[in-house]
Amino acid sequence: MELWYKEEHSPNVKFSIKVDKHLYSHTSRFQRIDIMESNEFGRFLTLDSSMMLTEKDEFIYHEMMVHVAMAIHPNVKRVLVIGGGDGGVVRELTKYPSIDEIDLVEIDEMVVEACKAWLPQTACKLEDARVQIYYVDGLRFIRAKENHYDLIIVDSTDPFGPGEGLYTKAFYGNCFKALTDKGILINQHESPYYSEHAASLKRAYASLEGCFPITQFYQAHIPTYPTGYWLFGFASKAYHPIEDLDEEKWNQLGIETDYYNTTLHRGAFALPNYIQKLLK
Amino acid sequence: MELWYKEEHSPNVKFSIKVDKHLYSHTSRFQRIDIMESNEFGRFLTLDSSMMLTEKDEFIYHEMMVHVAMAIHPNVKRVLVIGGGDGGVVRELTKYPSIDEIDLVEIDEMVVEACKAWLPQTACKLEDARVQIYYVDGLRFIRAKENHYDLIIVDSTDPFGPGEGLYTKAFYGNCFKALTDKGILINQHESPYYSEHAASLKRAYASLEGCFPITQFYQAHIPTYPTGYWLFGFASKAYHPIEDLDEEKWNQLGIETDYYNTTLHRGAFALPNYIQKLLK
Repeated sequence: MELWYKEEHSPNVKFSIKVDKHLYSHTSRFQRIDIMESNEFGRFLTLDSSMMLTEKDEFIYHEMMVHVAMAIHPNVKRVLVIGGGDGGVVRELTKYPSIDEIDLVEIDEMVVEACKAWLPQTACKLEDARVQIYYVDGLRFIRAKENHYDLIIVDSTDPFGPGEGLYTKAFYGNCFKALTDKGILINQHESPYYSEHAASLKRAYASLEGCFPITQFYQAHIPTYPTGYWLFGFASKAYHPIEDLDEEKWNQLGIETDYYNTTLHRGAFALPNYIQKLLK
Repeated sequence: MELWYKEEHSPNVKFSIKVDKHLYSHTSRFQRIDIMESNEFGRFLTLDSSMMLTEKDEFIYHEMMVHVAMAIHPNVKRVLVIGGGDGGVVRELTKYPSIDEIDLVEIDEMVVEACKAWLPQTACKLEDARVQIYYVDGLRFIRAKENHYDLIIVDSTDPFGPGEGLYTKAFYGNCFKALTDKGILINQHESPYYSEHAASLKRAYASLEGCFPITQFYQAHIPTYPTGYWLFGFASKAYHPIEDLDEEKWNQLGIETDYYNTTLHRGAFALPNYIQKLLK
């Protein structure tokens, strides 16, 4: 018997992975959660059939969500992660002894439970003493916060569907308020390649630009995400993503990474012309 | 009826594109050539069922094969293109009035004929007065040349199968000899992500390093190639890919590009840690 997981990257493009074993399937109050084992990518997690992460390439996404901001902001003490119940962003954050507090706001407790059981590679640091998990809606959680976090990382699903509220001007405005005076917001922005995604990217970028004095996008190559080309949003109250990069300081920390380095950091902000035109 | 083109990216990974119309199919002395029309990517060319190019994203590959070297070498007069019968590399080269001579060595005349008929987007400059096409084996052609080309671009198929000879030390040695004293060689190196490709990449890199004093890899995002992450080889007798980049001079040329720019040029050489480890 052959078992194949198929994802629609667009109505005209499909990506298929041969599955060795369907390890876990559960429908929570919010979504269907599946974890599968594959020969090519190790275990992988899908939510409502959309690829969230694979063991083989999750390091790229999680490192790029965390280390870019950490190499810029000189003094991150308190971090908020919205979404990210798989624990990958938290794992990267716990590499910094200087961080005191990591609040993880995940709407769906079942995602965290499933990942603790089946994806220890990402969930391994959720028990770190600095981590506090809140099983609530991130949109609601953020409203009550003011001048508290040095870094907010929005590790959400797509900018269309259930995660849509996390790409609005109202939400970004609340993040701005929840951040300290030199705070940074990082979020993921999909691939701009397929036309329907390009439209949501433009909207999200405009909203982000309306709320923060410094807004830039940066890129990474993530093979199992549609098109393999992924954009991240960088929004900041004070620090510039290149001018305020402290390469020497970050390299002295001795943090081990498989994708990120401070030379690549600069390169990640060097976008192709077609993306620059799209964002204009 | 639904028609889908399916490509195996590995035995465990498949990529499928919905096809509107199968425009052309012919089996030449060397290979099977197909051109299809798709809603998502426009027309696309396959050789022996492997994706060669799509109208939507060929600009990325062809710009990165040409402009990186052209922004480094100050005086390219004579260029040899091996493979590349689709004409995309030639099209980018003809944007430089300073180039006097473009020799295109394509083993399979049918590829050129098919592209002239069905892919004018890439084949549009094959009639340029500076272009001379030779329908011969590149391995043989290069042996007779000495101290002639300022730039050699090897736009071949994969480093396994029919194109394998274009990734050997013997071939690179002949390229070295065919280049002028400050000449540059550019070739394409697939994606390093799937383990079988990583092995051929390491071999090819070692061969290249054995022949040229300066050897580096650079990267681009190409959505319709396996994993979307692509590496290119840069081998040079004298010029360094970053130190000898003349940004101002290149930008003054006013060449229009949709992917390449001189900031991205620097970023393209900033490889992730896992690639650096692989190449060590």
